[in-house]
Amino acid sequence: MINIGIIGMGRIGKVHLQSITYHVKNACVLAVADPFMNSETEDFARSLGVKKIYKDYKEILADPEIGAVLVCSSTDTHAAISIEAIEAGKHVFCEKPVDHAVEKIKAVEEALAAHPQCRFQVGFNRRFDHNFAAVRKAYDEGRIGEAHVLKITSRDPEPPNPAYIKVSGGMFLDMTIHDFDMACFLTNSDVEEIYVQSAVLVDPAIGEQGDVDTAIITMKMTNGALAVIDNSRRAAYGYDQRAELFGSKGMAATSNDTLSTVVVSNAEGVTGEKPLFFFLERYMESFSEEMRQFVDACESGGQVPVGIHAGMQAVKIGLAAKKSVEEHRPVKLSEMDA
Amino acid sequence: MINIGIIGMGRIGKVHLQSITYHVKNACVLAVADPFMNSETEDFARSLGVKKIYKDYKEILADPEIGAVLVCSSTDTHAAISIEAIEAGKHVFCEKPVDHAVEKIKAVEEALAAHPQCRFQVGFNRRFDHNFAAVRKAYDEGRIGEAHVLKITSRDPEPPNPAYIKVSGGMFLDMTIHDFDMACFLTNSDVEEIYVQSAVLVDPAIGEQGDVDTAIITMKMTNGALAVIDNSRRAAYGYDQRAELFGSKGMAATSNDTLSTVVVSNAEGVTGEKPLFFFLERYMESFSEEMRQFVDACESGGQVPVGIHAGMQAVKIGLAAKKSVEEHRPVKLSEMDA
Amino acid sequence: MINIGIIGMGRIGKVHLQSITYHVKNACVLAVADPFMNSETEDFARSLGVKKIYKDYKEILADPEIGAVLVCSSTDTHAAISIEAIEAGKHVFCEKPVDHAVEKIKAVEEALAAHPQCRFQVGFNRRFDHNFAAVRKAYDEGRIGEAHVLKITSRDPEPPNPAYIKVSGGMFLDMTIHDFDMACFLTNSDVEEIYVQSAVLVDPAIGEQGDVDTAIITMKMTNGALAVIDNSRRAAYGYDQRAELFGSKGMAATSNDTLSTVVVSNAEGVTGEKPLFFFLERYMESFSEEMRQFVDACESGGQVPVGIHAGMQAVKIGLAAKKSVEEHRPVKLSEMDA
Amino acid sequence: MINIGIIGMGRIGKVHLQSITYHVKNACVLAVADPFMNSETEDFARSLGVKKIYKDYKEILADPEIGAVLVCSSTDTHAAISIEAIEAGKHVFCEKPVDHAVEKIKAVEEALAAHPQCRFQVGFNRRFDHNFAAVRKAYDEGRIGEAHVLKITSRDPEPPNPAYIKVSGGMFLDMTIHDFDMACFLTNSDVEEIYVQSAVLVDPAIGEQGDVDTAIITMKMTNGALAVIDNSRRAAYGYDQRAELFGSKGMAATSNDTLSTVVVSNAEGVTGEKPLFFFLERYMESFSEEMRQFVDACESGGQVPVGIHAGMQAVKIGLAAKKSVEEHRPVKLSEMDA
Repeated sequence: MINIGIIGMGRIGKVHLQSITYHVKNACVLAVADPFMNSETEDFARSLGVKKIYKDYKEILADPEIGAVLVCSSTDTHAAISIEAIEAGKHVFCEKPVDHAVEKIKAVEEALAAHPQCRFQVGFNRRFDHNFAAVRKAYDEGRIGEAHVLKITSRDPEPPNPAYIKVSGGMFLDMTIHDFDMACFLTNSDVEEIYVQSAVLVDPAIGEQGDVDTAIITMKMTNGALAVIDNSRRAAYGYDQRAELFGSKGMAATSNDTLSTVVVSNAEGVTGEKPLFFFLERYMESFSEEMRQFVDACESGGQVPVGIHAGMQAVKIGLAAKKSVEEHRPVKLSEMDA
Repeated sequence: MINIGIIGMGRIGKVHLQSITYHVKNACVLAVADPFMNSETEDFARSLGVKKIYKDYKEILADPEIGAVLVCSSTDTHAAISIEAIEAGKHVFCEKPVDHAVEKIKAVEEALAAHPQCRFQVGFNRRFDHNFAAVRKAYDEGRIGEAHVLKITSRDPEPPNPAYIKVSGGMFLDMTIHDFDMACFLTNSDVEEIYVQSAVLVDPAIGEQGDVDTAIITMKMTNGALAVIDNSRRAAYGYDQRAELFGSKGMAATSNDTLSTVVVSNAEGVTGEKPLFFFLERYMESFSEEMRQFVDACESGGQVPVGIHAGMQAVKIGLAAKKSVEEHRPVKLSEMDA
Repeated sequence: MINIGIIGMGRIGKVHLQSITYHVKNACVLAVADPFMNSETEDFARSLGVKKIYKDYKEILADPEIGAVLVCSSTDTHAAISIEAIEAGKHVFCEKPVDHAVEKIKAVEEALAAHPQCRFQVGFNRRFDHNFAAVRKAYDEGRIGEAHVLKITSRDPEPPNPAYIKVSGGMFLDMTIHDFDMACFLTNSDVEEIYVQSAVLVDPAIGEQGDVDTAIITMKMTNGALAVIDNSRRAAYGYDQRAELFGSKGMAATSNDTLSTVVVSNAEGVTGEKPLFFFLERYMESFSEEMRQFVDACESGGQVPVGIHAGMQAVKIGLAAKKSVEEHRPVKLSEMDA
Repeated sequence: MINIGIIGMGRIGKVHLQSITYHVKNACVLAVADPFMNSETEDFARSLGVKKIYKDYKEILADPEIGAVLVCSSTDTHAAISIEAIEAGKHVFCEKPVDHAVEKIKAVEEALAAHPQCRFQVGFNRRFDHNFAAVRKAYDEGRIGEAHVLKITSRDPEPPNPAYIKVSGGMFLDMTIHDFDMACFLTNSDVEEIYVQSAVLVDPAIGEQGDVDTAIITMKMTNGALAVIDNSRRAAYGYDQRAELFGSKGMAATSNDTLSTVVVSNAEGVTGEKPLFFFLERYMESFSEEMRQFVDACESGGQVPVGIHAGMQAVKIGLAAKKSVEEHRPVKLSEMDA
């Protein structure tokens, strides 16, 4: 049994609190901290058995009863708090992205190098999604042979509000970053080169923020496979999350999850349900699974399923994507190291 | 918040304990009782916060802190314990079937008539399954017009062991009873007449117990719709649970749930996953939902979603099915009242 | 190359003329006959290369150039013309049903016994449908093991006009007769016993003609399998033609054909196309294939794929179905021999 | 009724001969010509009613009875023969590509400008495919709003032999050219810019010919939509031909055609059929439809459905694709005019 402290009690912090309480056997949340802690959040936490409620996350880091922390604070604090926690001897689960700057992620890498016992996991929860995990499993089992072409479709049901876009780092670092990690996960490879063709087709207000809302992103993976991601900030039929891995021996493809399998046939046609509404519905089970595997790694000292390398890769790919748009050319990932 | 006592801690009692603990907000399990209570079960219950562990269910009935009981004991005790609980002033959730004998269910009806404040729910959990509920919803919304033909396919992945078959009351009262209730639920109607064509095709040992393992069951519903259930005790591809309601304006049909939507295309064909293994996998969420609705009815004093009428109907249909096989003729449900 | 004469130039006679002209290599239609031959039909036939146009079918039977005839006249003349054609030394393709009366089909059997060189095929075209043939193939290949439960869904888009119902022999001999033959084909077995639960739910005018428009038909096959057919004279979404064969090792199931595979996802849902409109659309290719196989049997002297036994079975089953409705009981097929 | 002459009796010439004979009402093939005419081809043509069999296509051009010619000769002769035919006053159906060189297609454009009465159609048969036509129809009907992202998957079951690759102009001008035209057709737009990421993953021998066998091709359309094509020369599960058009109001997507809808469920999974084998199976009906529409345009003097502009566009896009690979950068289509 490991005691966990959650730093940051926004939406995702609450999701993890519930997951651990209800779905992770060998862990419990002992403490939560949030600078904006209010009575509502406190009541919520207490109703789930949390004993220590703080405003200052440093109280969690100082608590010797706590073995692991979840860094769910705002993105700009992820790296700094992670380093503090590593140095305080805690295992760390850090929400994505670790940071928008390569330098700051490198600092985390260095802290980890100095604390090899620390289990450090990045919150790419979609790797634990039942559908995407099944694609990877088919690949690992050799059912599709060597990877040739990966296709990921990732479309949100609604764009975020324009204010959020400004602080989010833009579509590639906020939304596509999950797809970049998924590309690496499904092909079991890193990215070598990227090219982006993008546009503002959903809402001109997004363009006014200097961002795009629609994109086709082509990547060459280091293992030779090609990959393509297509993104849109708004699909009229809801959250569209699919992947298709094509290889020398076959293809593994997923379709969207729905609330039920019911299909109504009538004079209008043969109609099934739209996809589950958004990420909290579609990926809820994956949040539990990533916690179970993080806790297992902490307890066993084994490897975490998503380490700092993945966290660095995804950000570098996102930055390369932005550069590709700015310079209108294919960009090698190695350019990001310069 | 209502305190619940669970009588009978076999497989289904444990399922309900977990559901209430993790998935029902306004209820908690205060006590459990089982004549065969052992340390393993006790540990399991205590790990989920149960404070009172008994061998004798009468201790639960006598506890004034407990507002509702779940009757999860062996089928032959359902009716008697339910009546005791009703008379002790508890709300009652009774597992299916209430009993194999119409007379004993009538006794429960009488006890309920004498205690009108009692909320009494029967454990037909499949009514709360996302797929079947979606069929009924489509019907209620008028998307398929008046019900003409209902088709239910219900096949188990494996037959029970022969010893169980003897005490189970046979396929119709043990397995098909869920489908009988589903037929009433989906057409929102009772059964008027039934005819069964059955066979022993899966395992001769089942026939030696005087039971059948394969059947096609035709029913005329009181609202004029026709219904057919096809049953098998063993589907090589797993648990097959589908329904299709055809009406004057269209059809609502469900397919099986699977662990993922992944489809592998290769030289052998285009292959998706088999259905979820068995009822604990397929119907797990429905067990939580039936508890939520039971607790809500207890708290609000509103109507339970599955009352004693449904419990009586399903047993009468099952007994009529047996009579149809014995006498090789259509049997009217009114014959069961004689 | 065999010369063919078509007797009866109604809708189905014209279909066969086109099939043979365009899709059957080793045959040509030399002559057509119809008592109501008009200039439109004559022009149509001539445009497809037919050289001899008659009112009287006896001219076809007398023509030594003609090797095979298709009997596409009205049902009440099928048996008599078939016998004449057999005795005239022609091979015969007879549309279904051969007749409504067992006695008259027996007379055809006798004529065939006296002319063993005659290839006599009955027009159960659905056996040649790509979907149903694929179910049978899966069964023959052992992919689903021994047959346990066959399910056929057969629903028309619209009922025929009431006037036709009167002369058609009723739903079982007109519409379901195809499904009866399909049940025998897919299980590779005859019927032992039948029970029908039926109703008038589509149109009271059909009931006024003494017919039904909705039915669930249960059969026990001679090989032990159970079978069920559900019929409706009107499906709001169109022509619904599906089959599902469940066996000891698995299941083979078909869905409906559509004009395209396109699926539109939008705010309303995920919508595919309705089934192909009616039998001329859905089964067009099967009409060509039955002709090819008939011509092959004539040319090679090999066995026809659908012989007089199938023609007799389907009618007996249809008559037993009517008796089951009248007497409200299961009826053995052997009763039809009395 | 129009008389047609077919120039070139290779595989595609024979396909058109059959289509016109069996499936086009108001046309007949009067003459065929092929420099390698042999007795087998002659017999085939005569069996379908062709009266004039030539080695020299000029005899067809000189024949006043012939109103339209199909140019099905080798690609390097398409443009020259087309021009001769135009000048001889014939309507022309020219197989794709019109040529590999922009200059030569311009010469055809000029000939057409000088003969405005000539109906000139290019053989992009896939526009007439039932699935792709249904996507375009959904778009035209406004069911998916404005086009945002088009995705085309196009994979062959087997690569051509290496010798063919050399003369074919490479994958982009031989195979992808159909997809380029499809991109223009489905978005109802031209291409503005293209970027190709490609690889040799299927067979090194293809790379040795200087060609690629796997590619992801991104395009910006002139109407602002983005488009992506993924190609492979070998899909282990067969011919994979899908398209998905995503827009402001929804998405229209197609799946592959199969020989039947049968799905077998057994211990291995739930398995449907592989796609139809190759283009002759999948697109056979589209060859008939393009002929019907060509003949209609010739007869009515109306517009052809696929004119010289489409023929030019597809070649320019293919050449731009090659340039993008060579120069490893996005290429504007306007560069092809230089």
